[in-house]
Parts: sequence; structure tokens; C-alpha cells
Amino acid sequence: MKKQIHSEHAPPPGGYYSQGIHAGPFIFVSGQLPFAAGGQIEAETAAGQTRQALANVEMILAEAQASMDNLVSVTIYVSDIDLWPKVNEAYEVYLDDVSIPPARAVVPTQELHFGALVEISAIAYRE
Amino acid sequence: MKKQIHSEHAPPPGGYYSQGIHAGPFIFVSGQLPFAAGGQIEAETAAGQTRQALANVEMILAEAQASMDNLVSVTIYVSDIDLWPKVNEAYEVYLDDVSIPPARAVVPTQELHFGALVEISAIAYRE
Amino acid sequence: MKKQIHSEHAPPPGGYYSQGIHAGPFIFVSGQLPFAAGGQIEAETAAGQTRQALANVEMILAEAQASMDNLVSVTIYVSDIDLWPKVNEAYEVYLDDVSIPPARAVVPTQELHFGALVEISAIAYRE
Repeated sequence: MKKQIHSEHAPPPGGYYSQGIHAGPFIFVSGQLPFAAGGQIEAETAAGQTRQALANVEMILAEAQASMDNLVSVTIYVSDIDLWPKVNEAYEVYLDDVSIPPARAVVPTQELHFGALVEISAIAYRE
Repeated sequence: MKKQIHSEHAPPPGGYYSQGIHAGPFIFVSGQLPFAAGGQIEAETAAGQTRQALANVEMILAEAQASMDNLVSVTIYVSDIDLWPKVNEAYEVYLDDVSIPPARAVVPTQELHFGALVEISAIAYRE
Repeated sequence: MKKQIHSEHAPPPGGYYSQGIHAGPFIFVSGQLPFAAGGQIEAETAAGQTRQALANVEMILAEAQASMDNLVSVTIYVSDIDLWPKVNEAYEVYLDDVSIPPARAVVPTQELHFGALVEISAIAYRE
């Protein structure tokens, strides 16, 4: 069974997608832009946007009784690879309590949607 | 067991890859460019190319007795984020009958292979 | 259970991530840049960098008692789509013994981290 995950604490979908999908033991989280729950990009720095995107991932996972500890694979899209050190540092601090860091891919893109500096998609595993 | 999925109704692989792989309850669909079954890009607009790429995904899923309803995660690569509204609209119309929209990531890339405007990869779940 | 995969024969993580994660029957391999085991990019050509990135994937899979034959989905990020023919050729030769080619997506990015020409992430399946 494929189940929709929807969190009131993460930004509402701005198009035809679910925030997350739970299928078997895996949770697929949509690419999260750094929107605050109100639907605006408030953070201006790469670090702040990274924290917001991760907070959105965390809220979506929470709806599926999962946490950042359940992450198995994270893809970080960044609009400019020169921002990477700031993104990486914010990421590491945010995931500080995670027992095993997930696999990760870093993908430098063109300018992201809505001018965001960072977009984060993820797969988590919860039996 | 890992099983190869091959549809005669989708464009033949243009390199060393399978159109799709069925492994456990998951189906992994290769990034679909908007090739018509004959192997040419015929659609010129972003909307038309989106429909063609999705039709390819659908045909590949059909070989695994799955449909767009089984999609759990879709990644849409777009060569220019300014094309996004047209891509998004075509996507939403194409998936109109889907009961739960899959998770999604939108990735603005450099120019795509063969000058395509859109490439779509996907994961589906079928028990 | 989510298990960390770590190979001494692949480059050590240069940030907060695991080389790979084994979760259920799936193995998620972090995006591999063409670092040699010593932690430097030595290969200068797209073909050589492709072989190195694939060798890293292979070493990580080996730690999970898996091989390239277990690959189900591969994403190849390339900094310039004009490099694709060389990347594709090296990829096909490297995977020559694989019985079923995995699904694949080809993603042209901006310049990759550390100036790499190629980055390869992958999902494998091992029951």
C-alpha cells in the first residue's frame, strides 16, 4: 500500500505532489525548498535555507512516525557549489544527533525554483 | 530477484541501461527523455515533451503490471526553470486519475541530452 | 535496521555522510566523485573519472556482499553533456559483466564539487 504523508507543520505542496509517500518500509520525501510553514522563503543565507529545508523534511518524516535517524539517502541540490561549505556545515549541525549519517549526493544545479539556494529530497527507512 | 522491464511501446534504450528494473516491490524507471517510440524527439514544446516523457514512463510501468497510480517518487529534470509552469501543468493533467500524487523533486539542469527540455525518472511501488 | 557500509578501499567520506547505507534489501550508495582511495582526483579524462567513480561504487557494494550485478538504479551527474559519449563508453565497458543493466538517469549539472567531471550515485538490491 502507498500512503500519503501530509504535515501541517511543513509548507503545503505548491503543485501536484505529496509532501511524502510511505511505501513498504520506505518513505520518499519530496524535494524540499526552504519555505517556512507559511509558504514563503524567509531565510536568506545558504545555512538558513538548509536548516529550513531540513526542518521541512523532519516534519514530514514525523507524520510517518520517523525521524532524521531514519534517513538512508539524501540528495542536496545547490544552486552554486561555492555555497557548499555553508550548506554542509548547517547540515552536519542539524543532523548532529543522528546515529548513522545517511548516504548523500550533492548536485550543483542551475538556479532553483523560486530563486532558492538549496533543495533537499530524501529517502527514509522505517520498518 | 532483479528483473528487467522492457516495453516495445517506449523508446528503445539508447545506451547501456534498462528502461526499468523491478526489484522487490519497487520499480525503478530510467530517466525518460521525450523520445517518441520511433526514437526521435517530436514534441517541440515543454508541455508536449512532458507528456511524451510521462507516456514513456507509463508504458514501462505497464510492462510490470503497474500504472501511474503506483508512482511513489518522481524526479523532473528541466533544462530551464522558466519552463516549469508549462511542465507542471502538463504533469498535473497527465496524472489526473492518480489517487495519491507521488513525491516529487524538480531539478533545473544544464541543457539536457539531445537538447531535450525535460527528463523524468521515477520509482513505483507494486507489491 | 539501517546499517552503515564503510569500505577502506573507497575514498573516506569528506563530510557528514556514509559511503553507503544498507536498509532492508536495498543499498544506497552516496554520490561518488572520482577520488582515488588516497582522497585525490587523479584521473584527468571523463573516461578515467568515470572508471574511478564506478570503482568506488563497486568497493562500497563489496562491503555489503554485493556487486555491480546488484545495481538497480544509477544516476550519473556530468558537468558537461558533451562529455557524455566518453562517460557512456567507459560505463558500458566497466559494467560489461553485468547480466542486466540497471536503470539510469543522466543529469547535466553545473561544475561539480572539486571540479570533478562526473559524480555517480546508485541503488542496489540484495535480498
